[in-house]
Amino acid sequence: MRESFVSPYGQSLALLTDFYELTMAYGYWKKQLQDREAVFQLFFRKKPFGGSFAVVAGLETAVEYMQKLQFDSSDLDYLSSLKGAHGHPLFEMKFLEYLSKLKMTCDVDAMPEGTPAFPQEPLIRVQGPLLQAQMLESVLLNIINFQTLIATKTSRVVLAAQGEPVIEFGMRRAQGIDGAFSAARAAYIGGCIGSSNVLAGKLLGMPVKGTFAHSWVMAFSTEEEAFEAYAEVLPENCIFLIDTYNTIKGAQKAVAVAKKLKKKGIEMLGVRLDSGDLAHFSIQVRKILDDGGFPQAKIMASNELDEHLIRDLKVQGAKIDLWGVGTHLVTGKDQPAFDGVYKLCAIKDKKGKWVHKLKLSEQIAKMTNPGILQVRRYAMDGQYIADMIYDILFSLVEPVRIVDPNDTGLIRTPETGSHFHDLLVPVLRKGQLVKPLPKLSAIREYSQTEQAKFALSIRRFLNPQLYLAGLEKSLFDHKLRIIEEIQTREAL
Amino acid sequence: MRESFVSPYGQSLALLTDFYELTMAYGYWKKQLQDREAVFQLFFRKKPFGGSFAVVAGLETAVEYMQKLQFDSSDLDYLSSLKGAHGHPLFEMKFLEYLSKLKMTCDVDAMPEGTPAFPQEPLIRVQGPLLQAQMLESVLLNIINFQTLIATKTSRVVLAAQGEPVIEFGMRRAQGIDGAFSAARAAYIGGCIGSSNVLAGKLLGMPVKGTFAHSWVMAFSTEEEAFEAYAEVLPENCIFLIDTYNTIKGAQKAVAVAKKLKKKGIEMLGVRLDSGDLAHFSIQVRKILDDGGFPQAKIMASNELDEHLIRDLKVQGAKIDLWGVGTHLVTGKDQPAFDGVYKLCAIKDKKGKWVHKLKLSEQIAKMTNPGILQVRRYAMDGQYIADMIYDILFSLVEPVRIVDPNDTGLIRTPETGSHFHDLLVPVLRKGQLVKPLPKLSAIREYSQTEQAKFALSIRRFLNPQLYLAGLEKSLFDHKLRIIEEIQTREAL
Repeated sequence: MRESFVSPYGQSLALLTDFYELTMAYGYWKKQLQDREAVFQLFFRKKPFGGSFAVVAGLETAVEYMQKLQFDSSDLDYLSSLKGAHGHPLFEMKFLEYLSKLKMTCDVDAMPEGTPAFPQEPLIRVQGPLLQAQMLESVLLNIINFQTLIATKTSRVVLAAQGEPVIEFGMRRAQGIDGAFSAARAAYIGGCIGSSNVLAGKLLGMPVKGTFAHSWVMAFSTEEEAFEAYAEVLPENCIFLIDTYNTIKGAQKAVAVAKKLKKKGIEMLGVRLDSGDLAHFSIQVRKILDDGGFPQAKIMASNELDEHLIRDLKVQGAKIDLWGVGTHLVTGKDQPAFDGVYKLCAIKDKKGKWVHKLKLSEQIAKMTNPGILQVRRYAMDGQYIADMIYDILFSLVEPVRIVDPNDTGLIRTPETGSHFHDLLVPVLRKGQLVKPLPKLSAIREYSQTEQAKFALSIRRFLNPQLYLAGLEKSLFDHKLRIIEEIQTREAL
Repeated sequence: MRESFVSPYGQSLALLTDFYELTMAYGYWKKQLQDREAVFQLFFRKKPFGGSFAVVAGLETAVEYMQKLQFDSSDLDYLSSLKGAHGHPLFEMKFLEYLSKLKMTCDVDAMPEGTPAFPQEPLIRVQGPLLQAQMLESVLLNIINFQTLIATKTSRVVLAAQGEPVIEFGMRRAQGIDGAFSAARAAYIGGCIGSSNVLAGKLLGMPVKGTFAHSWVMAFSTEEEAFEAYAEVLPENCIFLIDTYNTIKGAQKAVAVAKKLKKKGIEMLGVRLDSGDLAHFSIQVRKILDDGGFPQAKIMASNELDEHLIRDLKVQGAKIDLWGVGTHLVTGKDQPAFDGVYKLCAIKDKKGKWVHKLKLSEQIAKMTNPGILQVRRYAMDGQYIADMIYDILFSLVEPVRIVDPNDTGLIRTPETGSHFHDLLVPVLRKGQLVKPLPKLSAIREYSQTEQAKFALSIRRFLNPQLYLAGLEKSLFDHKLRIIEEIQTREAL
């Protein structure tokens, strides 16, 4: 089931792209550059949410997209209808014929989903025919940026919950249908235990959770009647929402109903708070539940929660056992876009020699790194200590030297005795999967393990300790030389 | 084409819902409440982005969803696999059989897409069997909240651009596949002239725009060569991106290339800036273009634009003719979730008499309005002056009295001689379309016209003038009585 349903889309999504990808594709084709071998890399610039790292997600969805990529006749009909400024067709028929036969044959190397990644590190590297590798830009960014945003946000919320379960509840405020579906997937990777999204449960095999809304309570004459009716119908899913009219009275009624249920062998699993002062009410409600003889009943809370509010509630001694997090989780509320970009980094010249590419731009922040890059992560005593971005075509000289991105005058070397592994692994070769991608539950587990290998001082969500993730020294020097070359060539 | 492709989804989306909708549906069915007639209303609480109104969008998508809603065998197989806390199946087989035959038979009244709406006003009213009307909650909120968010954000950006065209460029930072697709649709409704999203162009008939990226420039030996190659291939789409290496030099090179092209009969339509100080560079580049003999060439700008930045650039005298707006437009960056809710407002009792419903909650902001509501909009001299929310079962007494929501002690009456119309119109009766929904271009036009009927002081995006949109006095009094009744009944 999972294999074929990474996304709930049925029809051709070949045109899920920015228009300029197609005009460029046409241009490359006309200029016979379509098969020139090129390397594009997807990376991000800013630390998301002011934390240290992003939790990479979306690769499986992107791979499914790439493998299914094919222009169907309706796509080509549409493209043939497009006109330029003077009313002539923009694309030649021969180009559309070319597109109709196009299959993705790129090589893709990527960080496994769930990997914590730092700014400037390539998350995905695409190597292949220029036209194809270029055309993947918009859709790869769309998929990876969003899922990575949500997995990252979730990792923070889950950290704040200190081991207590977090459930994704955001469908109603998510950004569209896939905003809900892909968010559920990414939230699970980031560390949620499940989602309210039934479609995600069905298609991704994730746990789904939920009981009832205020409208259930309002559909009955009294709150007690509503609780009893629910328990009778769904005796194994008894979490009562108690704030429809008044939280304290609601808790007292829940206890009264739970006592009756106990006699029938039905267990009230817990109660849910969805409004009001969660610190105050959870403490009061805990007391009501305990005094009523239900110390094992859980308190679940929801209502505009995020990592900061959860942390604050914990500091205040809130008695909350389960966290339902919606809007902030599925939209990344305080930073609703992940700034991943996808840039040309190398292209072969006519003679087949790699030419490294770099964009200068008016903003230093928008400058890119040239070359065919890999990331090496160093560990010491089971904890990660540094990342090094290097060019796979350069031979590394030990001990390696890493340029500190926070002060490029500083050169650092990982401690003697440290271990390392390279983060980008082969995913596709000539468009074919190298090996099956891991299951979603395995991705989630891997991510939890990897995240835990970073010190809490690095993971904390306000002003984290700086982690060294920089360019290998010879790559850094190479980049400076290319900048000089461009400035000379373009007479800047 | 349009009819069948409001969304790009192929397979069953019946499970695109929060799990609790299904547990409640099961409960209603078990309690034989499934066919009890109920009214739910979708409304929002807070003025989005600090402005006055929201621009409603998403109805067509929602209608397509409702009309196609059907549980298929894979949905039912999945639901039959779900277990409770003690491992027993949650749902009876008979219930799943019931679901398999379920068709949406609700009546739906709604504000036409593109309508400006104010807090507390019902955007959509669903009347029908309790089980069905309840089950639509999650998906209606998902669709309407997102598209309304983006149409609203766009209306602000378009207002800031003062008549200059705004193009939606956000796919790469949008929240997932549908986050891009539905955002393109909503941005068009809100006032964009088009999008870079080719799928939206194909499926929705919207104009698509775009030329080339930095990678195009980098794929050639020099910037001039890249410009010339593009012009040769796509002579009717010549807008040159000039900031790959240096904006000023890029502009000079564009002019040099444009002069050569002119001799070949090819017109440079304009240039695009994507980084740096847009005020400074647009003024410099305008001068270079004018001095070079290309005063008709447009300057397009993109780079983290929003309504505030556009307004500020205009104040600074920036020479920008076309605005490419991405991230902020498609994510609603400063407020990425629209707070629409869907609440039970009335339900028939066993005798078929309407009982009005209201949720008290711990927060006044989370209290709901009871009744079967309609919105009456008053106009004077072609300008809208007030909205009144009223219960369609109450007889209105002229002159009507509106309770000011900013101070419920104040009662206001629309000026003598004002005209009015009711905003909610019939959309579905027993699940069937009353009449075809308007085309997207007509929705866009309608929205522009309607938005323009609000004074600029109401439309401005910082501290707008207060617009009166309140409850009709007898509805307000009725609400207070119900609150008292609940407090008595629930012993609060």
